[in-house]
Amino acid sequence: SRKRQFSDEELKDLLISGNKTALGRGITLVESNQSSHQQRAEKLIESCLPYAHKSIRIGITGVPGVGKSTFIEAFGSLLVKLGKKVAVLAVDPSSSVSHGSIMGDKTRMENLVTEENAFIRPSPSGDSLGGVARKTRESIILCEAAGFDVILIETVGVGQSETTVHSMTDFFLLLKLAGAGDELQGIKRGIIEMADAIVINKADGDNLKAAREARLEFNRALHLYPPKASTWQPKVSLCSALDNTGISEVWEMINEYKKLTKKNEFFEKNRHEQNKFWLLQTINEHLKQRFYQDPQIKKALKDQLTAIENNETTPFAAAKLLLNLHNEL
Amino acid sequence: SRKRQFSDEELKDLLISGNKTALGRGITLVESNQSSHQQRAEKLIESCLPYAHKSIRIGITGVPGVGKSTFIEAFGSLLVKLGKKVAVLAVDPSSSVSHGSIMGDKTRMENLVTEENAFIRPSPSGDSLGGVARKTRESIILCEAAGFDVILIETVGVGQSETTVHSMTDFFLLLKLAGAGDELQGIKRGIIEMADAIVINKADGDNLKAAREARLEFNRALHLYPPKASTWQPKVSLCSALDNTGISEVWEMINEYKKLTKKNEFFEKNRHEQNKFWLLQTINEHLKQRFYQDPQIKKALKDQLTAIENNETTPFAAAKLLLNLHNEL
Repeated sequence: SRKRQFSDEELKDLLISGNKTALGRGITLVESNQSSHQQRAEKLIESCLPYAHKSIRIGITGVPGVGKSTFIEAFGSLLVKLGKKVAVLAVDPSSSVSHGSIMGDKTRMENLVTEENAFIRPSPSGDSLGGVARKTRESIILCEAAGFDVILIETVGVGQSETTVHSMTDFFLLLKLAGAGDELQGIKRGIIEMADAIVINKADGDNLKAAREARLEFNRALHLYPPKASTWQPKVSLCSALDNTGISEVWEMINEYKKLTKKNEFFEKNRHEQNKFWLLQTINEHLKQRFYQDPQIKKALKDQLTAIENNETTPFAAAKLLLNLHNEL
Repeated sequence: SRKRQFSDEELKDLLISGNKTALGRGITLVESNQSSHQQRAEKLIESCLPYAHKSIRIGITGVPGVGKSTFIEAFGSLLVKLGKKVAVLAVDPSSSVSHGSIMGDKTRMENLVTEENAFIRPSPSGDSLGGVARKTRESIILCEAAGFDVILIETVGVGQSETTVHSMTDFFLLLKLAGAGDELQGIKRGIIEMADAIVINKADGDNLKAAREARLEFNRALHLYPPKASTWQPKVSLCSALDNTGISEVWEMINEYKKLTKKNEFFEKNRHEQNKFWLLQTINEHLKQRFYQDPQIKKALKDQLTAIENNETTPFAAAKLLLNLHNEL
């Protein structure tokens, strides 16, 4: 049976009414690199904007093996039970190489995927982090317009993708294991600093004692950082996605955060700052692309690099020459 | 008595002959924001280029109070005794505010400043970090052309200035105190990762025991990082600028580093990478400046930010609109 075709108007109306098929089709348009699809996606997003922005966006990260999928399965199922509509997106710029290391296999969340009020979408693939980020940001808008009020954005604890997810979410949750010994990594890469919560997963059975010790340690580490602009003091908690313990406490914590930051207006201010960040980021990336992809600049850049190596010019003089050339083109 | 005026040709010849007055005047041209001075500076640098690049450039950083000046005084005096010509420059973008917190007072190196073969220059002030960085990079070229074969570049352990100095030096030395308890800061801000040597200063008298313990700790911390591209294993050593102990060991270490990285060609490769970094960095900064300083863009940017806040457009659609506007201007 062939897929039913929707007109753009139908797609929008169905999407706003909460139809998951329409939402999926909309995201497919957003993710497409075809220019006709991109134009349709832009119009769709624009018409969805008045219906969006009513959600809480939660970033979830952690190294492979920490149990992100089982946590999201347990957490998402709880939210659905509480009457929420939950969308799960992912940011994984490596997914084109690894064939979708994150949620490529939806069966990893086999209960959540069957829920009427849950929508799970793997990371767009075959793209740079910047491309994935744009597509995910726009998909968030579509999910919100479709009435999803909790958006979970999962990313793997590698490279710059955590910073990217942090800059598109309201609350940032770091999943950890007790005794994994990667605390230094988290500090070094600035992940601990971004976290609003550190949740120690697999705190069950024989792990429980170590998890409690880890909680003390992370609490100590968190107190070494200056207070956050949100005035929120990041918290450390324990959970077991397996035993389904500590999961509702995470949701309570997020509600506490939302209450605080709605009251002190950080919540809205942060979203505006994020919008500004993405606007400037997108402009800067395009300015660079336009410059460096020009064939004459490419050639001249190569020549100038050689001249620098031969001590015939300096990087600053070479930059001036290339910028003047670009102006004349 | 009025200052003697040099023609540009005289200035160049005197500078290359090693005249410190000429070198000082040359750097003043480099630091000037007057466009006639900048043109003369560019010509001077270009004519100096064939005589430059024979030095070793050493970055020295550490928090205020660690004893940077006394270390440089002791280290520089040793190098002069060994027959070296030593230039000391500084990168301190805050110097316009703090009225020259680094070396504003040359008497802090009262012995070194009287040496014929030493040249000390405070940080250019009243400028962004980018501006200070360019001026310092160009001053290095003039110092090298004047025959200075060891260039020490001091920076204060604050903000991005350490990364900037790291990207213009061959060897990066981090000065520390025992028991200062700021190890986490160094890891968090990536400073430990950049260091080729950690030198624990004030390792004298009652401090000696704590300094030895700190050496063990830093050695442990360093081993947690992946091997460097230089293949150099960063070292931790003790010194006392006061007792003049451990100072010659630092110079031996740097010579060891130079020997290794000249042999495996990292030394030259790293300088080429740095040149490329500064070329691209300068271009990117100018592209942004040109865009954001355009009055029509300024106005349109403000309007688009308002439209985003009112949920009438997205950051990506706004970026596209602004980029198209810029193209038409």
